[in-house]
Amino acid sequence: MPPYDNQNIFAKILRGEIPCFKIFEDEHTLAFMDIMPRSPGHCLVIPKAEARNLLDCPPEALSRLIVNVQKIALAAKAALEADGITLQQFSESAGGQEVFHLHFHILPRHEGEGLQRHPAPRGDMSVLAAQAEKIRAALVGM
Amino acid sequence: MPPYDNQNIFAKILRGEIPCFKIFEDEHTLAFMDIMPRSPGHCLVIPKAEARNLLDCPPEALSRLIVNVQKIALAAKAALEADGITLQQFSESAGGQEVFHLHFHILPRHEGEGLQRHPAPRGDMSVLAAQAEKIRAALVGM
Repeated sequence: MPPYDNQNIFAKILRGEIPCFKIFEDEHTLAFMDIMPRSPGHCLVIPKAEARNLLDCPPEALSRLIVNVQKIALAAKAALEADGITLQQFSESAGGQEVFHLHFHILPRHEGEGLQRHPAPRGDMSVLAAQAEKIRAALVGM
Repeated sequence: MPPYDNQNIFAKILRGEIPCFKIFEDEHTLAFMDIMPRSPGHCLVIPKAEARNLLDCPPEALSRLIVNVQKIALAAKAALEADGITLQQFSESAGGQEVFHLHFHILPRHEGEGLQRHPAPRGDMSVLAAQAEKIRAALVGM
C-alpha cells in the first residue's frame, strides 16, 4: 500500500487550508458534512492522525475514532429524524476509496429512500450548513 | 429502536445452534463467512455482547470490535490477494440491516470487479470453507 500523502483534501481540511461544515472536533477527531451527499445529512468522521485507511490506522486511534463515529451517527439520526444509518468505509481504490485519509461515511437513511448514486451532485451549501448546525445541536448532551 | 431480540440468526450462531464457517473467535468477538457473499471472501465480524447495531452497542465493546475488524480485514485482503476492502455496517431496516445483531461486513475487492447485487446467491459451501481456512491462516501472526 502506498504511504500516507499529506496533500489529500482531508489533510488540507485538518490544516485549515480548505473550509468545511464542521460538526465535531476533539483532540483526535474531526467530523464534517460530505459536500456531495448521497443522503440528507451525509457526514464524514476522520482521525487527526495520519492514516491512509482502515488498513494502516493505529488500533488505538481506530478504537477512539469508532466511539465518535457512533456518537455522530446517533446525533445525525436524531437531527435528520432518520429511520436508520448506513455506515461505509472504503480502503484503497478497489474498495471504493477516493480520498486517501481514513474516513467513515455516516449516511442517515429514511424508509423507502435509496442512496444517491455516486458521484452525487454537489449539495446546496445553505442546506449543508443548516444540517451541520442541527447535528451539532443534537450532539450536545450526548 | 426495538430492544435486542436473541432469536436472530447471529445469536443462534453465537450459541452454537447454527453452524458457521468460523474465521476467528476470542472472548468478545466472532468472525465468520457470509454465506451469501457479495464478493469473494465476504465475511462478518460480530461482538458476543448483545447489541442490535451500531446505535446501541456499548462504546467499549465497539472499540474492542473495530480492532478485530481491522485485523480480519487485513487477513482477508492477504488471503484473497485483494486490492482493497469495502467495509459496511447497517443499522435498522432503513439503513439496510436484515439481521438484528451488530455486524460489520468486510468485502475484499479486486480492481475492476463490482459487488454482487444484494441479495447475492448462496455461496458454494466448499469454496466458503476453503476461504475461511485461508483467512484463518493469514491471521496467524497478525
